[in-house]
Amino acid sequence: LHRIKASGLKLQLCTNETQATREDFVRKLRAMGFDVSVAEVTAPAPAACALLKERGLRPHLLVHHDLMPEFAEIDKTNPNCVVLGDAAENFTYANLNKAFQLLIGMEKPVLISLGKGRYYKETDGLKLDVGAYMKALEYACDIQAEVVGKPAKRFFESALAELGVPPEQAIMIGDDIVSDVGGAQQCGMRALQVRTGKYRPSDENHPEVKPDAYVNNLAEAVDIILQQL
Amino acid sequence: LHRIKASGLKLQLCTNETQATREDFVRKLRAMGFDVSVAEVTAPAPAACALLKERGLRPHLLVHHDLMPEFAEIDKTNPNCVVLGDAAENFTYANLNKAFQLLIGMEKPVLISLGKGRYYKETDGLKLDVGAYMKALEYACDIQAEVVGKPAKRFFESALAELGVPPEQAIMIGDDIVSDVGGAQQCGMRALQVRTGKYRPSDENHPEVKPDAYVNNLAEAVDIILQQL
Repeated sequence: LHRIKASGLKLQLCTNETQATREDFVRKLRAMGFDVSVAEVTAPAPAACALLKERGLRPHLLVHHDLMPEFAEIDKTNPNCVVLGDAAENFTYANLNKAFQLLIGMEKPVLISLGKGRYYKETDGLKLDVGAYMKALEYACDIQAEVVGKPAKRFFESALAELGVPPEQAIMIGDDIVSDVGGAQQCGMRALQVRTGKYRPSDENHPEVKPDAYVNNLAEAVDIILQQL
Repeated sequence: LHRIKASGLKLQLCTNETQATREDFVRKLRAMGFDVSVAEVTAPAPAACALLKERGLRPHLLVHHDLMPEFAEIDKTNPNCVVLGDAAENFTYANLNKAFQLLIGMEKPVLISLGKGRYYKETDGLKLDVGAYMKALEYACDIQAEVVGKPAKRFFESALAELGVPPEQAIMIGDDIVSDVGGAQQCGMRALQVRTGKYRPSDENHPEVKPDAYVNNLAEAVDIILQQL
């Protein structure tokens, strides 16, 4: 990151983190030595807020407690949609039924999901991610959720807008073949897949998505990009 | 029911009830004045037990507490499949993650679902049914559940086996166009839809299922059947 910034290139972090505010996320990164500001982070919750405002939607929130502050400015009275995030311990039987009851009671149920991940790893084991609960509500209400966050095209577009850069001048670096590489390429960006994190060797035979190049790690990605300046 | 039995016809009740044992179910019906025995009830839990035994499967149970006794005889050590029922209050975040972790840890995950209902009504409002949780686990594990209970063909076949009657000599009476009418017809039975309970006028334009006849209520169904003896 230091080297990217020192070179004068612009940078935007796109995360599907929905268990914490951007402020918390940036605090963690800074503690790890990364020089990042809140404005340099594109995340699903603020993207959802933009969508809610644009369409005059008032959400019922089924999200993680620590994410609530991102929705502080949003009118949540008399809800006409449900916003679903990785609510973790808030995924109780009562809360799921409540979200369902609100949706099924709407003339045209609107479910906005802050991602569609299947599962993720925590220190105490694998956990069902927001996508699984999204599917439960979709099936019960016979609807399709609107997914905010990667790999949604709109999500990458808002990151590009933040940078003020057209897609053909941007490069995405990520570890997830579908969410990162697929999403960025759909937007017209070039995409590097790093062979770390979520990367699996089987990704290289993915039936639909092919990155523009592979790199062994983030440092190598930066080397390649800086060489081409 | 009295009139059916008095006529010498055989009768089998097919229910998707998975919040109680057959014993409890029969007790409720008897309290309401219906003369029914446990042997006259076909239900998903015993159907699942037959399937588990047949295939040497040892289940992890995510079911309603009151249904547990139906699985008393089944070996549940070192589970190699998950059986999912309408667990109601047992649908906690921890229990869902536990079921998911077991499935994802299996070489070939086996999920047996005691139904695929979307939702049902309780005195305090609509509740998500087992089908919604089934979809969540299916998505997270990228698998298809095996559904026991209506409208599974095997479920109606086991009811017919209990009666000792071939499908063309049996008539199904039910209120659910897909689960009851569709399931029974797939088995080669004729099917009457009663215009009570779950029946909706829109059922009469169902794109796939057409009952052999409609009746206004159960008494009328019995009239018609007894007339034709």
